[in-house]
Amino acid sequence: MPEIRQDVVTGRWVVVATDRAMRPSDFGPIRVSAATEQSLCPFCPGRELMTPLELFAVRPEGSEPNTPGWKVRVVPNKFPAFKTGEQEQLAEPMFSRRTADGSHEVIIHTPDHNASLATMPVGDVELVLRVYRQRYRATMENPDVRYAHIVVNHGKEAGASIEHTHSQLFGVPLVPPLIQQELAGASWHYTSRGNCVFCRVLEAELETGRRVIGENDNFVAIAPFASCLPFEMWIIPRAHQQSFDMIEGDQFGDLARLLNDMMGRYQERFDSPPYNYYIHSAPTDGSDYPYYHWHLEFIPKLTWPGAFEMGTSMMINITTPEHAAEFLRETPPGGVSAL
Amino acid sequence: MPEIRQDVVTGRWVVVATDRAMRPSDFGPIRVSAATEQSLCPFCPGRELMTPLELFAVRPEGSEPNTPGWKVRVVPNKFPAFKTGEQEQLAEPMFSRRTADGSHEVIIHTPDHNASLATMPVGDVELVLRVYRQRYRATMENPDVRYAHIVVNHGKEAGASIEHTHSQLFGVPLVPPLIQQELAGASWHYTSRGNCVFCRVLEAELETGRRVIGENDNFVAIAPFASCLPFEMWIIPRAHQQSFDMIEGDQFGDLARLLNDMMGRYQERFDSPPYNYYIHSAPTDGSDYPYYHWHLEFIPKLTWPGAFEMGTSMMINITTPEHAAEFLRETPPGGVSAL
Repeated sequence: MPEIRQDVVTGRWVVVATDRAMRPSDFGPIRVSAATEQSLCPFCPGRELMTPLELFAVRPEGSEPNTPGWKVRVVPNKFPAFKTGEQEQLAEPMFSRRTADGSHEVIIHTPDHNASLATMPVGDVELVLRVYRQRYRATMENPDVRYAHIVVNHGKEAGASIEHTHSQLFGVPLVPPLIQQELAGASWHYTSRGNCVFCRVLEAELETGRRVIGENDNFVAIAPFASCLPFEMWIIPRAHQQSFDMIEGDQFGDLARLLNDMMGRYQERFDSPPYNYYIHSAPTDGSDYPYYHWHLEFIPKLTWPGAFEMGTSMMINITTPEHAAEFLRETPPGGVSAL
Repeated sequence: MPEIRQDVVTGRWVVVATDRAMRPSDFGPIRVSAATEQSLCPFCPGRELMTPLELFAVRPEGSEPNTPGWKVRVVPNKFPAFKTGEQEQLAEPMFSRRTADGSHEVIIHTPDHNASLATMPVGDVELVLRVYRQRYRATMENPDVRYAHIVVNHGKEAGASIEHTHSQLFGVPLVPPLIQQELAGASWHYTSRGNCVFCRVLEAELETGRRVIGENDNFVAIAPFASCLPFEMWIIPRAHQQSFDMIEGDQFGDLARLLNDMMGRYQERFDSPPYNYYIHSAPTDGSDYPYYHWHLEFIPKLTWPGAFEMGTSMMINITTPEHAAEFLRETPPGGVSAL
């Protein structure tokens, strides 16, 4: 059973999830690639029984669960970081811990082993987003879950252990520190200025255009002013919505189009880099967060953060977001690189 | 001139240091190794003029600066993240920034290109630690600096751009967020419990021995209870000292011995892994921090954190520190691995 430990000095939480524990000898040199061969991939059609039984799938009406034919497939993570079990407090003095209740599932984007969000047809990307909302809402129903976190790890250097394109949805039993920080800042701004800080940033960015990479009717992609890493990119909905579960109607198609366009630009300009993205959204603890504004944060894995960053929680970014935005704006999606 | 930007939502600071900026085409695929060839290494003897002029060196009496013969050499970082210049506030509404005043230097551990802290004689490691204190004290004198941060990045995957073993010393113009968090926790504990939280943790760890890896008269190495990453290790002085600049006497030799021993164990057991370490110490802003206790934090780079960690500021650790300590205790320094 995974557990959450708390550092007595900082109050920092760490999930210790040893279900996926490796023996020390399994760590090996980090340089060796462990990308899953297609011939062994547990996310490919025909190998449905290599994963835990499916929770949900987009598949032809009447077809059997856990058989081929699906377009998007959702299964529990085989090595969950959070799972619902017997709640237990395990504290000793100085060493506080508890069971890591919650959920952890995998959303397999497509049956095609070689596809990615950059190369999939926009309609298929949209289908993935619709499944996101369906699973997000299902996760909200879990009484153990206070925050639902959708993420993508693409490529081994970005933490992916399986190559076949997929997302993960974590049902976290507490509101994570970074979200707490965003909520505190947004709440302060809302109370003292009377408006949403994300709406204000979006307005200011659109006014100058300096850090805008792309936009459509419902979404804007920017290189954020205080980007932590080179070529960081956020996609923000124009409409003020606190939670991702409020996405609806034309927003699905517009987000799919912008995400697919952006993924294509990075693939083109950085030779298919490893990357991470995640969706930041209001907690799912039943409270109202009128001052929050959900968005997607994307970070290509182009550099190796070092001990300065680890020891301070401050980042050193070697590329200005103004330069990043200009460079990415110039790239036609799928077009020929001019470098 | 490097600058510090502040995210308007979280208050998070980011250093934007574009002196080392690369063109986007320089990022290339992250898999390609960029380790500096020995034949071009700017840290090797005979190439002293490839670095900025030296600030300090341990060298034979009467020998010229910036010539061979040195044992440890300190130079300004060629691409500084912090440097003293004209102070400037550059704020616009929503987009707050300032110049990144301070200092940033490099401590070259040895003239031997192929040596490391694991293979150097203990006496040479001790010399490096003595230079640490000398430079730490010099950095404290800089009125721009509120926090002095000593770090090692070893190996490309740990953020090193140069292979030749070295440390970096950052003179940071503010107290970094992670240090603020430690100070807040330590201060709370000191006020409410009347003692140092680090002393208490050390006592509790020594009582059970479960997470102790090694110790000598002046220092103890532990796998911390809430380790963020697999095989994380801290070295804590037994004496209650708030700041690294208070290290003295036998502590130098004992820290050198324990550090060298630990580095040897990791090298042996994980096939010379990339790693990071940094020293956490009280701020150098002239205030007194009687509740703080300096220590060294070491993290081998064995896994790739993903979007869960980036999006939450919570870590998922797949190895328990109890297991890590047991495994590292069993390893004789430089001995034969039993795996």
